[in-house]
Amino acid sequence: MGCAPMGHILYDEVMRYNPKNPYWFNRDRFVLSAGHGCMLQYALLHLAGYDSVQEEDLKNFRQWGSKSPGHPENFETPGVEVTTGPLGQGIANAVGLALAEKHLAARYNKPDIDIVDHYTYVILGDGCQMEGISNEVCSLAGHWGLGKLIAFYDDNHISIDGDTDIAFTEDVDKRFEALGWHVIWVKNGNTGYDDIRAAIKEAKAVKDKPTLIKVTTTIGFGSPNKANSYSVHGSALGAKEVDATRKNLGWPYEPLHVPEDVKKHWSRHIPDGAALEAEWNAKFAEYKKKYKEEAAELTSIITGELPAGWDKALPTYTPESPAEATRNLSQTCLNALAKVLPGFLGGSADLASSNMTIMKMFGDFQKDTPEERNLRFGVREHGMGAISNGIALHSPGMIPYCATFFVFTDYMRAAIRISALSEAGVIYVMTHDSIGLGEDGPTHQPIEHLASFRAMPNILMLRPADGNETAGAYKVAILNRKRPSILALSRQKLPHLPGSCIEGVEKGGYIISDNSSGNKPDVILIGTGSELEIAAKAAEELRKGGKGVRVVSLVSWELFDEQSDAYKESVFPAAVSARVSIEAGSTFGWEKIVGPKGKAIGIDRFGASAPAGRIYKEFGITVEAVIAAAKEVS
Amino acid sequence: MGCAPMGHILYDEVMRYNPKNPYWFNRDRFVLSAGHGCMLQYALLHLAGYDSVQEEDLKNFRQWGSKSPGHPENFETPGVEVTTGPLGQGIANAVGLALAEKHLAARYNKPDIDIVDHYTYVILGDGCQMEGISNEVCSLAGHWGLGKLIAFYDDNHISIDGDTDIAFTEDVDKRFEALGWHVIWVKNGNTGYDDIRAAIKEAKAVKDKPTLIKVTTTIGFGSPNKANSYSVHGSALGAKEVDATRKNLGWPYEPLHVPEDVKKHWSRHIPDGAALEAEWNAKFAEYKKKYKEEAAELTSIITGELPAGWDKALPTYTPESPAEATRNLSQTCLNALAKVLPGFLGGSADLASSNMTIMKMFGDFQKDTPEERNLRFGVREHGMGAISNGIALHSPGMIPYCATFFVFTDYMRAAIRISALSEAGVIYVMTHDSIGLGEDGPTHQPIEHLASFRAMPNILMLRPADGNETAGAYKVAILNRKRPSILALSRQKLPHLPGSCIEGVEKGGYIISDNSSGNKPDVILIGTGSELEIAAKAAEELRKGGKGVRVVSLVSWELFDEQSDAYKESVFPAAVSARVSIEAGSTFGWEKIVGPKGKAIGIDRFGASAPAGRIYKEFGITVEAVIAAAKEVS
Repeated sequence: MGCAPMGHILYDEVMRYNPKNPYWFNRDRFVLSAGHGCMLQYALLHLAGYDSVQEEDLKNFRQWGSKSPGHPENFETPGVEVTTGPLGQGIANAVGLALAEKHLAARYNKPDIDIVDHYTYVILGDGCQMEGISNEVCSLAGHWGLGKLIAFYDDNHISIDGDTDIAFTEDVDKRFEALGWHVIWVKNGNTGYDDIRAAIKEAKAVKDKPTLIKVTTTIGFGSPNKANSYSVHGSALGAKEVDATRKNLGWPYEPLHVPEDVKKHWSRHIPDGAALEAEWNAKFAEYKKKYKEEAAELTSIITGELPAGWDKALPTYTPESPAEATRNLSQTCLNALAKVLPGFLGGSADLASSNMTIMKMFGDFQKDTPEERNLRFGVREHGMGAISNGIALHSPGMIPYCATFFVFTDYMRAAIRISALSEAGVIYVMTHDSIGLGEDGPTHQPIEHLASFRAMPNILMLRPADGNETAGAYKVAILNRKRPSILALSRQKLPHLPGSCIEGVEKGGYIISDNSSGNKPDVILIGTGSELEIAAKAAEELRKGGKGVRVVSLVSWELFDEQSDAYKESVFPAAVSARVSIEAGSTFGWEKIVGPKGKAIGIDRFGASAPAGRIYKEFGITVEAVIAAAKEVS
Repeated sequence: MGCAPMGHILYDEVMRYNPKNPYWFNRDRFVLSAGHGCMLQYALLHLAGYDSVQEEDLKNFRQWGSKSPGHPENFETPGVEVTTGPLGQGIANAVGLALAEKHLAARYNKPDIDIVDHYTYVILGDGCQMEGISNEVCSLAGHWGLGKLIAFYDDNHISIDGDTDIAFTEDVDKRFEALGWHVIWVKNGNTGYDDIRAAIKEAKAVKDKPTLIKVTTTIGFGSPNKANSYSVHGSALGAKEVDATRKNLGWPYEPLHVPEDVKKHWSRHIPDGAALEAEWNAKFAEYKKKYKEEAAELTSIITGELPAGWDKALPTYTPESPAEATRNLSQTCLNALAKVLPGFLGGSADLASSNMTIMKMFGDFQKDTPEERNLRFGVREHGMGAISNGIALHSPGMIPYCATFFVFTDYMRAAIRISALSEAGVIYVMTHDSIGLGEDGPTHQPIEHLASFRAMPNILMLRPADGNETAGAYKVAILNRKRPSILALSRQKLPHLPGSCIEGVEKGGYIISDNSSGNKPDVILIGTGSELEIAAKAAEELRKGGKGVRVVSLVSWELFDEQSDAYKESVFPAAVSARVSIEAGSTFGWEKIVGPKGKAIGIDRFGASAPAGRIYKEFGITVEAVIAAAKEVS
């Protein structure tokens, strides 16, 4: 209720959008970072003429099957750009949207035609401000000079636990100035409509800095007894107080009834929006004629249609190719893809030289070089993930990747989960994926991380073993535009294994070698990533002893789960219970693969600081251990 | 190398410690938040006379079995207070250490005896500064007025990817002023020893604010060719450059050789430290005489010995007790424990009224009321977890709890992992633990979280089902001082089940009801938390049909795993393969319990926004589903 004036002015006066096509490319973007106030956004979308939110949806707020869930969800409600609710995510997404606009404008605008030209607006509250992620991304927004990002800070002094004074007494204005933002204070946000209008005008005039408009409001404004109280933060007013509020505000209408004069006032947005899009379409038609190549690229970005034959750019390898760490093989893929995918961009959280994520043909995206494609996130993993979500959701053909050490997915897990939930096809390039990183020790060595992501819905956890599998992992990641991918990559060198292939990765699990026949191996050895080599070596030894041994690469559990029963049976015949898995990570979940008669070799403790080879040996992640286990179970 | 002057002055001139007793209660605490520079700390500990770091350890830096791992680890190296490396954690731990000091000083100091009186020093770098968590905790440190927290900001302008200008151009000084800190700038940190001394003096004089001493240094100072370059950030100088550096600094000695005059200079810390502790011991002896009750409490905090009979304070329930949400039952436990455990304190990340975490007999810990025990973290989950680690590691008897919605463990996972790794017995009170929270929808509904923590080493994931199990979970959590606990608690009301008990929880899994005999049930139904009720109801129905049905509560997988084979067999006889589990979360990992012939009922997709009952029904988390599955498998 306190945000109603800002929301009203934005949707009724300021923003350029077409309600009948919520996906029009050049629309202004709006993000409600304070997602718990989503009823405001649903009401505005309804008034503005979006088909997604009908009167019925407003009545069925937070009910099964309605388009008005408890927090804004882009995958449920067209017109909602991103998924918010977990605090701080929205402002980070907005930074990503604004980055995408600045980048595309720099690449595609021409002296005679500005084909990319929109603002990104966001409303955030005290809760968002307290979250560390918002400081991370606002520091970057200031650094990058995202002048078309305009953030309204709903300064209502109330959070769930009471007055913000109990935990939040910092000087927010000063902090944002320190972060390089332009700051404006609207002292009366409840009724100061003209002040808000003037602030937006001023914000637009400042082109080299993002703007924070601090709008001091009263939470639950209009409610005579509950305004300015934490009891309205997450709870309904109650019937009695709603009545009192209606009287107080002079609003005589039925609940959720939109009076005719209000309807009439808002109805112009349907024709106006159509006109805006038509105007832009005409401009783009002209652009296509004049700038054929750029238009083709931009069309790919707008539609998400990948350029024909793009996957031919991916490298393939033979067992004779020199051994390489998969993080290096990943860099080869990134550089190959950068040449063929116009919307491909990304970077690392200050570990580019370790993650191997630089696209060598491009420079750094910076304030004055926004056309470049290497992003420098600094040591801000959480912000990096959420900014990448914003980039991915800007346009279907924007394909962001972002990188850090695999263990630091812990810093960005909330953003990764929102990638999965909001269908943002971000590619997470996660190197140093096990104890194999060695000396940095247990703080840097992931153990439970593979399991923890295998349990997360709608995400692809991929752990390639060599060059072909790394290429396959990228193929899968690029094709899955509505499902984020995490690539777990090694620091240490790995050989290219006979039998590995891109097509195998696409199935999630496949046989890389087998000396048995009739789908009846004596034992099945299963590995992922850097341990597939160990499984392969153990198989060689066991075969010398006369065993029929199958080696399976289980590079992605999710993809394998989606295969037909017949295919699964062809890889893991039910009759063969002698199974041994090896993975330098938690054995949690492996019981499903190896069964009660099999054995899972892994690590169910924290790591240690020492050279990688020594840790592998001490922890029993060895060829000898696989051979012993195989003999035990078969 | 750039931090050497600060480190030297701290350990040689400023800090009060006893090298022969690294655990002396009243020592000054030092935290190297920039943990990758740990060789400096090992060298200082060695010079100061700590037994933990011998010359051998310095030579075996980052090797198997040495006390000098790649990042500082408190559980490996006495004298190291906390575990750092993942950036930002250290400064957050330091805030927790300083909070503990301020709190204990307020509670236990007397007009005639200051028995708690130490400083907390921390060195942090650009990387820590960029992490959101550090903004969270520094905002709180300013809010709380932690005047005895003194942070050195090693401002070397270099991070791994190069000059910090590529991603970090904010005005750090101004930001810290906005956060309520006192800020001092030492412009020449390489050789300005007196400036550093003066800054520390000034910092100590400012008693109502924490101080940031920005020390501008040159990374790799002394190295003629690699100083001020990112190549020294995480890599060794190399033999040639080490030689050049030695020459440049006029250091003629062998590697790792400590010349006699240096040894002699530092040798005074052993007698000095012993004298400091002896002086304090004498003071505490006097304190014990004068303030018997307070001394007993403080002794419990210092030693970690729990007061006799503390667990009698925990409530128990019968099936006739009124149904309650486990979050409310948790509040009863928290309030009961607050009365008997002197070092018990905690709070929520702005959800106290939802998490039910207020200790009603206490007020809020605030700047001017530091003796109180309810902590108000604001919406800063990550900072909350890491501050709690610092509190827990201040003294063995400090028992912090912290709370948010279970799904938001994603925001604080990096801190939770460090709890587990660094043996900090923090209690994580995580409510709203499933789709049972209802209308807030999928952004707020945990799915994969139970599995993700079951896979994490050295942590206890507990999901109690009712009053007795909640009390049992707290008993386990309090007893496990070197293993953090996560309690997953319901928003919705739950009945008290016949057969539930505290002792059962201590075993992790146990039979709550069984109508079969001879350890041969027809089917075993397994549930956790809110779904144990569903399993119990299904059992009742199945028994009516003549089945022998056992119901097992699997409240903590980790504890159950630690039981004897005989006990496990008594709960899950190998011969009984007809097993059905039900849990409103990912089925990932359940295969281990139900086996290939059993069935795991759970949720392998994201949640939805609707009333809880409706979602349970739509997702098939029902009595009917359990009955159907039981019939299918048995």
